[in-house]
Amino acid sequence: MIGKFIVFEGVEGGGKTTQIKLLRNWLLEQWESDKLFSKYKDLEVIITREPGGTKVGKALRELLLNADLSEEQIQEKTELLLYAADRAQHIETLIKPSLERGAIVLCDRFIDSTIAYQGYGRGLDLALIKQLNHIATGGLKSDLTLWLDIDVEIGLTRAKNRGKIDRMEQADIQFHQRVKKGYEELAENNPLIVRIDADLTIKKVQQQIQEIIVQKLYSK
Amino acid sequence: MIGKFIVFEGVEGGGKTTQIKLLRNWLLEQWESDKLFSKYKDLEVIITREPGGTKVGKALRELLLNADLSEEQIQEKTELLLYAADRAQHIETLIKPSLERGAIVLCDRFIDSTIAYQGYGRGLDLALIKQLNHIATGGLKSDLTLWLDIDVEIGLTRAKNRGKIDRMEQADIQFHQRVKKGYEELAENNPLIVRIDADLTIKKVQQQIQEIIVQKLYSK
Repeated sequence: MIGKFIVFEGVEGGGKTTQIKLLRNWLLEQWESDKLFSKYKDLEVIITREPGGTKVGKALRELLLNADLSEEQIQEKTELLLYAADRAQHIETLIKPSLERGAIVLCDRFIDSTIAYQGYGRGLDLALIKQLNHIATGGLKSDLTLWLDIDVEIGLTRAKNRGKIDRMEQADIQFHQRVKKGYEELAENNPLIVRIDADLTIKKVQQQIQEIIVQKLYSK
Repeated sequence: MIGKFIVFEGVEGGGKTTQIKLLRNWLLEQWESDKLFSKYKDLEVIITREPGGTKVGKALRELLLNADLSEEQIQEKTELLLYAADRAQHIETLIKPSLERGAIVLCDRFIDSTIAYQGYGRGLDLALIKQLNHIATGGLKSDLTLWLDIDVEIGLTRAKNRGKIDRMEQADIQFHQRVKKGYEELAENNPLIVRIDADLTIKKVQQQIQEIIVQKLYSK
């Protein structure tokens, strides 16, 4: 398969959205200037995200946030099953067909987010999360996962300044520190997860990403 | 636990809804006349159903039927995960709390419907269905499952006459025969599933149900 599945992970404020857009532009430039991908006639780069990368996913996201349900709290297991449904739909209708066409898929969050946020952050059942990740993906793995690792307080300050979060309270900091700890342990045990120092400038972060991409995926 | 979880299963037109209502009335009469349950101060009988026994379940049911999504077909795995989410929510928010209060829960369809309809009827992955059933229930089983077994053509004719289905085509008959085959195999392998001959009159079917309930659940 010439298509590659590249995932971006990390806590809030690490600049995933910005870096993904910059990477897409750079990949297309590389192709246009014949520097990389010269053997390919076309280069398609797709940007997507979880949760909510499909129509079904967006509907599920709305359901999870729907205030009408507030008197009947969504149970933890229900929530994990809904995220798994979103992921299965995303893989079957978007990620797999794109990879089979030979596209490069840049995905904002994937299975490691569920482990880090729901598992490490909120303390939901890690064994169940891993089992559902496996069911949803059917074993599909990323070719490369870039973990944009940022200092938790810097990240939350950035996210707050951009209006992405309302507040930065002590509880949020502790929660995001548990999430970061999750990513650390995931990266220790999985050589496909590469840590990127996201405390640096946008330009320097993008340079690291480009180097890793060339080295890990296109060096042959 | 004094609460009992009684499930009704079977193909369309077997009279589940009618029989469940009659059984509830009979159970309450037995309690009022001190014939059964004389040791209980109160008797609560709850009628519920799958899918759609909760608010989240109803929202998921709408999602599964939502025409706006028609251009993006819901994938088989997504569908099974959504049914599992419905079931997990139903168990956690309604079935378990009711049983813990000591209620008798009469449930129209449960895990065996997914095996019979999605597995045997439509040929979806049986191992995955069983795995998701186990995840959703967390091992909770019915105390008794009454399989209202009816001749497939009689059942479909009844369902059609009541406007519950539009048509009765050869494909439907074959589908329901596969579903019935599923129930047969489930009943062979699980002593908690009791076959009720539902080809008989409403009254005679209800008599069989009452006898089985007393014999299996309240004979001590």
